[in-house]
Amino acid sequence: MGNSSNKKRKVAQKAIEYVKDGMVLGLGSGSTMYWVLEELGQRVQSGLNIQGIPSSVKTQKLAKEFGIPLTDFSHVQELDLAIDGADEIDPEFRLIKGGGGSLLREKIVDVAANKFIVVADDTKLVNQLGSYPLPIEVVRFGWETTKDRVESLGCKALLREENGEPFVTNNHQYILDCHFNQIEKPHTLHNQLKSMVGVIETGLFLDMVDLVIVGREQEVTVLEKEELI
Amino acid sequence: MGNSSNKKRKVAQKAIEYVKDGMVLGLGSGSTMYWVLEELGQRVQSGLNIQGIPSSVKTQKLAKEFGIPLTDFSHVQELDLAIDGADEIDPEFRLIKGGGGSLLREKIVDVAANKFIVVADDTKLVNQLGSYPLPIEVVRFGWETTKDRVESLGCKALLREENGEPFVTNNHQYILDCHFNQIEKPHTLHNQLKSMVGVIETGLFLDMVDLVIVGREQEVTVLEKEELI
Repeated sequence: MGNSSNKKRKVAQKAIEYVKDGMVLGLGSGSTMYWVLEELGQRVQSGLNIQGIPSSVKTQKLAKEFGIPLTDFSHVQELDLAIDGADEIDPEFRLIKGGGGSLLREKIVDVAANKFIVVADDTKLVNQLGSYPLPIEVVRFGWETTKDRVESLGCKALLREENGEPFVTNNHQYILDCHFNQIEKPHTLHNQLKSMVGVIETGLFLDMVDLVIVGREQEVTVLEKEELI
Repeated sequence: MGNSSNKKRKVAQKAIEYVKDGMVLGLGSGSTMYWVLEELGQRVQSGLNIQGIPSSVKTQKLAKEFGIPLTDFSHVQELDLAIDGADEIDPEFRLIKGGGGSLLREKIVDVAANKFIVVADDTKLVNQLGSYPLPIEVVRFGWETTKDRVESLGCKALLREENGEPFVTNNHQYILDCHFNQIEKPHTLHNQLKSMVGVIETGLFLDMVDLVIVGREQEVTVLEKEELI
């Protein structure tokens, strides 16, 4: 197992400590989440009684492989705990998410959870958001006009592609990767983007995170939010 | 031809007067739009040179039947004129749209147009919006949680159905019909709804309409917006 995988597995093991019997869990996406799902699957085999709602088709597939019982929002509408990855995390626990293309379902799941834990390695910690291009999910129809509106805010917005074709989300829509470089006012930017016709959701996850579990070279650190930074 | 159809045809003929040779048109949806498309098709057969972008699969089909040349947003991103129907029109030209389920594409098309003309019969004119249930397009995944958020604003939100199944929009999403009865502050309500996770677009069309062409018993009236109502 590589050093990076080892870090991620340790983060996953720490995150699992917050999972209690009987919980309904939001299951996020990303590379660290792979290890969370694997670990969770093992606990389920040992008798842990939980149910999960996956936030992407890929996570759904993995969860099934690991034997994690799944449910959906037609059965439960409030989750006890969501665990999810992130592409950037700032000191106020504001996130950029969406590198994997599942930001919309992830946000719906994470918002529905009473507690939200982010798992990541220390390369994701930043002082200011925006080096990572901000993904936003946009309506496929007329996305060209939406792109113009988005770029009027001062970024270059690139339609995400996969194998030479536009990348299509689990919701049948497109992703624009928005190069802002520096995001000085994440709330303002999110509100401006979300209010636009054609924008479904942004990859800015604000005022949502309770705990960040970070994998570092030698250790795993649990960061709790200091409300008064 | 019924009296109602006769009214609608007269409205359509008046609307067509605003169409000039060489224009790119946004083609809306609804019962009056049928007559606009039919009339437009006749003009095209007589040599009128226009192109249209349809705002629903149904309008696309009708336009093709009537021989109207179509284009899309990969070719043009600014339209000269959009013509569209409405379910309610208030004295400040604020609209409720979406009865036919195409509000999202309609808004994308109507926003892209330099001029926006609404065609309707006089039964659509109201003093205050909200008797007609407000349609909003929501993400299919987790729509149950979105419904809860929407209802927290004080309405009953019903998932639209068709033949006993959830109605699916041209964008593969769902419609919630929101019974507010009275909408006192359309801008505030629109902003509150649009900012919610899971809400893609609302059927409130605000600050968009330039002209309303109304079919009445004896005549067709062209209403221009009085900015200082």
